[in-house]
Amino acid sequence: MNQITEELLKAVSDFKGEFKGAFNIRENGGCAGRQSTEHIRIESRKEGPGIVVHIMPGTKGETVYIPACVNQGGIHDLVYNDFYVGEGADVIIVAGCGVHTDDEEEARHDGIHRFFLEKNAHVLYQEKHLGTGKGDGRKRIDPVTDVALAEGAGLEMDTVQLGGVDYSCRKTRAKLAANARLIVRERIMTDGIEKAVTDFDVVMEGDNSGVELISRSVARGNSYQEFKSCIHGLARCTGHSSCDAILVDNGTVNAMPALEASNVDAELIHEAAIGKIAGEQILKLRTLGLTEEEAQERIIAGFLK
Amino acid sequence: MNQITEELLKAVSDFKGEFKGAFNIRENGGCAGRQSTEHIRIESRKEGPGIVVHIMPGTKGETVYIPACVNQGGIHDLVYNDFYVGEGADVIIVAGCGVHTDDEEEARHDGIHRFFLEKNAHVLYQEKHLGTGKGDGRKRIDPVTDVALAEGAGLEMDTVQLGGVDYSCRKTRAKLAANARLIVRERIMTDGIEKAVTDFDVVMEGDNSGVELISRSVARGNSYQEFKSCIHGLARCTGHSSCDAILVDNGTVNAMPALEASNVDAELIHEAAIGKIAGEQILKLRTLGLTEEEAQERIIAGFLK
Repeated sequence: MNQITEELLKAVSDFKGEFKGAFNIRENGGCAGRQSTEHIRIESRKEGPGIVVHIMPGTKGETVYIPACVNQGGIHDLVYNDFYVGEGADVIIVAGCGVHTDDEEEARHDGIHRFFLEKNAHVLYQEKHLGTGKGDGRKRIDPVTDVALAEGAGLEMDTVQLGGVDYSCRKTRAKLAANARLIVRERIMTDGIEKAVTDFDVVMEGDNSGVELISRSVARGNSYQEFKSCIHGLARCTGHSSCDAILVDNGTVNAMPALEASNVDAELIHEAAIGKIAGEQILKLRTLGLTEEEAQERIIAGFLK
Repeated sequence: MNQITEELLKAVSDFKGEFKGAFNIRENGGCAGRQSTEHIRIESRKEGPGIVVHIMPGTKGETVYIPACVNQGGIHDLVYNDFYVGEGADVIIVAGCGVHTDDEEEARHDGIHRFFLEKNAHVLYQEKHLGTGKGDGRKRIDPVTDVALAEGAGLEMDTVQLGGVDYSCRKTRAKLAANARLIVRERIMTDGIEKAVTDFDVVMEGDNSGVELISRSVARGNSYQEFKSCIHGLARCTGHSSCDAILVDNGTVNAMPALEASNVDAELIHEAAIGKIAGEQILKLRTLGLTEEEAQERIIAGFLK
């Protein structure tokens, strides 16, 4: 395996030389390894680039790894992955993505992921994004996540992007049937002239459905972040979104959350707070012997933990 | 004075047969009365329909009434009013607006108000909107408020629309210099097929400037409300917006608040909550002997007080 790919895999998907269970490794637009298991079948998509992952009803305790890497400039990888999760299954899907360029050319990965969760299925979906390399070429990742949750289904999505990605635009769309639940936790740190855009659109169609969007971001240097969300309540449902952002240096954050309640039994709440680290927090850590910079790093690390 | 106009004036601007102090009454696009005082000069605008109000520096404790009425269908009144408030002045401006139609024709008033507050000037601006009449013609009010606050200036704006207006779109734009402060409180109730849109855009350009937007709304029947706001922090500043909405029947509320912080010392916060009246609140009042309807009305009245 290419050494850069291996480093990226370790960083974004807990790769330890091998994966246990079902996996598909995507490298520069090709397949660098695949394994199905008794309950999880991974096939190539007939219509074009990408895979189809079938998770049998009732599958429990298994993890599917589907990391994707671009290890050189001049590659724009576009892939469509579909996940069919059978009734009552409860699995973890790890979908890290790393892009690397050592030259002037852009390294780019666009993953379009569709999740179809059957009745009472549950998925923990982890997505870690990383850009590396010494080149001036742009490191870019634009993930799209489309989620359809059947009755009682639940998706928990953890998204982390802590550095090195010059540009990212992540779009997440979801439709929730009765009793379905979506939880999204995202942690994003940008620096330099990086730009990161997040765009959520969640439609609660079924009674007793619920969504929770939790966004934490740190914008350093001259970086720019944008948080957009729209939560639609069309039924008896609950929606909560919160967006907390810390500004450092000349970072800019733009938060645009929207709530649309068109059912009298929809309860929607949003909070957003943008600002720098409070002076007293820094002061408290300095009295413990830390320098101002150390105190700041400590607070940011805790915030993004 | 036309009886409908008199009723509208009483309802929207505390008219008691006469006004004390400076006033200008606008009726169906014409002037139905005007008075200047020693410190407050009201003139017709040379460029077209509307008035220019000059408030001398240091003027204190005076109230200016500038109500506008449309008392019949088929009238679309468009007016531009400018307010120049001198340094250190502290006054109240009452700008109620009533539209009435008894036929099929629309009664419509568009007031474009520009406020120029000099250093340390302070204005309490009250705006009450009302639609009346038995006609099928639409009652429509679309106010635009443009505010420029010089150093240390402050504007408090109270907007109330509690019924009868079929369509309203209120746009409020403000720019704040150092130490300037803007407070907006709006209370809006819609019913039937009424539609009300609120759109704020506030730019804090000066250090230590601050804005507070407080929106409370009730959407009943099949009515629709939209709350948009964008708070831009370009300096060391604080911004807070909150949007609370109660849904009754089939009311719909769409809240789209945005925060943009492009200065590390900008502190911006937003909260929004949309939902129906909590069951336990109703229950509590019912144990005190109220019917469910009475309990609901009591809670709504308190919320919009």
